[in-house]
Amino acid sequence: MKDIQTTQETEMANAIRALAMDAVQRANSGHPGMPMGMADVATVLFNRFISIDPSAPKWPDRDRFVLSAGHGSMLLYAIHHLLGYADMDMDQLRNFRQLGSRTAGHPEYGHADGIEVTTGPLGQGIATSVGMALAEKMKNARYSDDNVNHFTYVIAGDGCLMEGISHEAIDLAGHLGLGKLVVMWDDNAITIDGDTNLSTSTDQQARFAAAGWHVSACDGHDMEAIADAIAAARHDPRPSLIACRTIIGFGAPNKQGCHDVHGAPLGDAEIAAARKQLNWAYEPFEIPQQTYDAWRAIAARGAAKRAEWEKRISAEFQAAEDCDTSALPAAIEAFKRQLSQDKPKVATRKASQMALEVVNATLPFTVGGSADLTGSNLTKSSEMQSVTPQDFSGDYIHYGIREHGMAAAMNGIALHGGLKPYGGTFMAFADYCRPAIRLSALMGVPVTYVMTHDSIDLGEDGPTHQPDEHLASLRAIPNLLVMRPTDAVETAEAWEIAMMSEDKPVMIVSSRQNLPLQRVDHVAENLSARGAYLLRDPAQRDVTLIATGSEVEIAMVAADQLEAEGIKAAVVSAPCFELFDAQDQAYRNAILGTAPRVGCEAAIRQGWDLFLDRQDGFVGMKGFGASAPAPALYEHFGITAQAIVNQAKSRI
Amino acid sequence: MKDIQTTQETEMANAIRALAMDAVQRANSGHPGMPMGMADVATVLFNRFISIDPSAPKWPDRDRFVLSAGHGSMLLYAIHHLLGYADMDMDQLRNFRQLGSRTAGHPEYGHADGIEVTTGPLGQGIATSVGMALAEKMKNARYSDDNVNHFTYVIAGDGCLMEGISHEAIDLAGHLGLGKLVVMWDDNAITIDGDTNLSTSTDQQARFAAAGWHVSACDGHDMEAIADAIAAARHDPRPSLIACRTIIGFGAPNKQGCHDVHGAPLGDAEIAAARKQLNWAYEPFEIPQQTYDAWRAIAARGAAKRAEWEKRISAEFQAAEDCDTSALPAAIEAFKRQLSQDKPKVATRKASQMALEVVNATLPFTVGGSADLTGSNLTKSSEMQSVTPQDFSGDYIHYGIREHGMAAAMNGIALHGGLKPYGGTFMAFADYCRPAIRLSALMGVPVTYVMTHDSIDLGEDGPTHQPDEHLASLRAIPNLLVMRPTDAVETAEAWEIAMMSEDKPVMIVSSRQNLPLQRVDHVAENLSARGAYLLRDPAQRDVTLIATGSEVEIAMVAADQLEAEGIKAAVVSAPCFELFDAQDQAYRNAILGTAPRVGCEAAIRQGWDLFLDRQDGFVGMKGFGASAPAPALYEHFGITAQAIVNQAKSRI
Repeated sequence: MKDIQTTQETEMANAIRALAMDAVQRANSGHPGMPMGMADVATVLFNRFISIDPSAPKWPDRDRFVLSAGHGSMLLYAIHHLLGYADMDMDQLRNFRQLGSRTAGHPEYGHADGIEVTTGPLGQGIATSVGMALAEKMKNARYSDDNVNHFTYVIAGDGCLMEGISHEAIDLAGHLGLGKLVVMWDDNAITIDGDTNLSTSTDQQARFAAAGWHVSACDGHDMEAIADAIAAARHDPRPSLIACRTIIGFGAPNKQGCHDVHGAPLGDAEIAAARKQLNWAYEPFEIPQQTYDAWRAIAARGAAKRAEWEKRISAEFQAAEDCDTSALPAAIEAFKRQLSQDKPKVATRKASQMALEVVNATLPFTVGGSADLTGSNLTKSSEMQSVTPQDFSGDYIHYGIREHGMAAAMNGIALHGGLKPYGGTFMAFADYCRPAIRLSALMGVPVTYVMTHDSIDLGEDGPTHQPDEHLASLRAIPNLLVMRPTDAVETAEAWEIAMMSEDKPVMIVSSRQNLPLQRVDHVAENLSARGAYLLRDPAQRDVTLIATGSEVEIAMVAADQLEAEGIKAAVVSAPCFELFDAQDQAYRNAILGTAPRVGCEAAIRQGWDLFLDRQDGFVGMKGFGASAPAPALYEHFGITAQAIVNQAKSRI
Repeated sequence: MKDIQTTQETEMANAIRALAMDAVQRANSGHPGMPMGMADVATVLFNRFISIDPSAPKWPDRDRFVLSAGHGSMLLYAIHHLLGYADMDMDQLRNFRQLGSRTAGHPEYGHADGIEVTTGPLGQGIATSVGMALAEKMKNARYSDDNVNHFTYVIAGDGCLMEGISHEAIDLAGHLGLGKLVVMWDDNAITIDGDTNLSTSTDQQARFAAAGWHVSACDGHDMEAIADAIAAARHDPRPSLIACRTIIGFGAPNKQGCHDVHGAPLGDAEIAAARKQLNWAYEPFEIPQQTYDAWRAIAARGAAKRAEWEKRISAEFQAAEDCDTSALPAAIEAFKRQLSQDKPKVATRKASQMALEVVNATLPFTVGGSADLTGSNLTKSSEMQSVTPQDFSGDYIHYGIREHGMAAAMNGIALHGGLKPYGGTFMAFADYCRPAIRLSALMGVPVTYVMTHDSIDLGEDGPTHQPDEHLASLRAIPNLLVMRPTDAVETAEAWEIAMMSEDKPVMIVSSRQNLPLQRVDHVAENLSARGAYLLRDPAQRDVTLIATGSEVEIAMVAADQLEAEGIKAAVVSAPCFELFDAQDQAYRNAILGTAPRVGCEAAIRQGWDLFLDRQDGFVGMKGFGASAPAPALYEHFGITAQAIVNQAKSRI
């Protein structure tokens, strides 16, 4: 019995190897080494453990499988083909890495069913999986084993474990005790430059153990040893690392075990030799029926499990999975009406917390957090409870001083479904989590980033902590909405936009200092959704002043000064460049007018060409900030109403 | 004897505490907790071990002291004042965090003598110190103990150790066995949000041990225990971590040990109570003479050590310290002349390697490296030898898959002096090291970043690996030169600019694919230093085409097509926006002309307002790339000569 199973599993694994080497060869591009090296581990994992149903790829209680070493994408595509995912036919494998195929060079979320996350930038997969495993724990605490009870499995390479983000991820997972997270490390001792001993001497098992993980090692080409290790990992209450000792490019007799096999086609001769070595008698892209049958038995097992699950799930769980936000607009409108009466003069970070009281009371599925700046980011609303290793029923995560790990974990929580994450840090530290923010945008995952202390208004902490080029660099990321509200009303509108977003991340940037309410007359419409709109609209215009966030106040003062001199100035508040850019030409023309323009933002000018031509004026920053109280900095850098007035007058 | 010393050291430490709490109180802003908590450790370190000479703050063989937990800046400023640094008089401490003072909120390199590195963004200090310790090893291997033989000491906080960059740093240091690196961890169990157990359970000593470090722990308020731990650390051949068990805000009787003391003034009442508790009878900003005397004995010891060193150093070492680049321009000019004859059609990453053959043969102090992409970045020239844990005489670093650690280490190597580092990765992964790149720019450290595969020309690896918004986001960083050469000549010029730079980092971005030589006629002048120049200059212009890097070839083809239709097109090659922006108005006007303009770059338009108004044309990217062979992608995204022709014709 054991022998038969082993033989069948070897065939199943060799099918992965053959498809990987053939697809890479045909594309003349790609990475055969990892899929061939990890084929045995992946086969045992899928054959004996994983519960997924290719006919229902979004089944909420499926096991999650994350290929953190995304360059080994052919491992995933081969498995999906063999399992019978409807959108992964053989033509997709033949068109590996070609324009328009689902089989991109690295797995791209949304390109094909079953791709749980975009991986490729190393370390992102393992860090995202921590968010998935955390979401599983949180939903399990809310809805019981009957509804939510599954594992998150990760295949990670040496690169994933060398990247800094892995440290943030494994520490957070170890602290929280995410016992249903199982990481299989492709321990092949090879990186692109050569042997791993060129650049690392770390004892990874000891490292993970130091972070509170269960660790083990196995021969990654011994099916029973692999199975034993996974079974033990599933059983242990801690997250688990399995060091799978593998030979990169296993099966290619002349190239295996060498770094040349990592990222280049094997070549026809070596592929022929590998076919011989593996006793694989089939043509390229040919899979024998018995191998298909073996893989499809896994799919059938998953479908049966899903059918059982469908019978036992609760109505409460089903209703919650949708993240229904339909009640939010009315709640935000009521809140805006109240604000227009109360006219609070508060920092927009405080306004954000006020909006969160409404948001979190209306939407039970939000998950807040901060990278250890809760009291500064004001991300915790009054009813929120912290998640602890002992109790996952809370809704607030102390991510620690781990901006990158936080952002990736939020991606994982959002991808998992049924929860809507947001998290905060100082805006200057957006740089620390930029790779994960980019992945939110590339995947179109509606994560909300709360970035406070959004300019030199941060003050005394100085230029390392003051955003300057950050607005430009973040607006540069495609498919990311950067909202910079000017007052409590715009902040509430930003939160509405963020929570209603289904296909893009939103970043809400906010001030440290108090700002007066500009939107004193209640308007039901979410004006911020237009990106920019007229806050002050004189019958005739001599000049148009355009500002964002804290600088709108300055522009309004400048407009008053100009008015006193008989110059009519319109003032445009522009909380979101991307949304303004999406408006039709007529709207944009109406807002911008034909008079000379002056922009104002306590940041560099880059990106303002959406509003300004080269001859238009701009009052902002030209270089890094400095350490001093904020009012002194505004004066020092000349971001003043008088500067706007001067620039306006010189252009009329 | 022991008691007297202890008493004196306690007084010395209390002087730090008093200055820290008084300066923070006066500024009404800052972080008293860390300086008060670590005052004893810092006092023992300086009093018994550190060799520095405040009268010669740039003494090459001084011990380096890095305050990685930069928010505790008053620790550093207080020590520098007490030691007698000439530029750190009491008025500087009184003006802590005020505009124009040397005492910025976080230590800023260049603001005052003895500040070895800008810290504040957490983890950067420890990662930079790895580069410093590595530079020490490399220079020691070249010039012997007589010339180079010193320690690098770091004070790091919990935040430094939670950030991912710390993982990259400690693994690299452990692998290389940087035994003269000693990290004192302020193990106070407190972060901003509260107790560290809110977010971490990592056994830091076990973690560092797993990375090959020597580890120990001590009571951070027991002078002898601290001294014993530092002595053992200095003796051990591995890098050392000392877990210093401290009480944050030590001495403030009602607040110490609590997270409230981390980042806010203590208040007058608590300061008075602390004075009592510490038996510190002096007024704010008053230091008794015997305490000054004790601190200045450290300075005198350092000055004597330096005097001894001055007597024994070699002429060879002295000559090398300057990093004399004066021979480079002639070498580059000769190389350019050769290129104009050979007319190589090579990828600019290959051209970069060709230029490096010249650079590295001319400048013996360059230190190359790559984040595990040596064969792709082509950063290793033919004569380079890899640095290994056994042999530091080489000049090439295998940084591992650690872009962030690499960038910070390069900052450290450059700051150390006497060596000129460059290092490579794929340009898309500039995001992974962005915080350290920003620090290079903020400090004005002339590090060279080699970023290859600079657009969709990367091809099949897909959008995660393709730069798109990266040119914009990197050009946004103040004081960073981003060079995007179009051919081998411009690449050689970029390397000249990078190597001659003394006050800013330079990033050289380069193509994966082959590009023809555009600069076919030899010009001695470094035209790239103008930022942009006319590559094709018809007697009269109907349109001006502006392009960078690989798209210059496309613009030249478009100009030919336009010419065939009787339209005169000038072509501007614009390898560096920042340098063009620095030219005078007359030059810029002459280059840009008055005809309509079309820009072309395989990236987003943001940042092109330096050249274009809103009505001008742009051929580039609007969103993320895709996975396919590069030629298919250029067609797919419409970055073609025909697109330029169409945009040009529609504007004439």
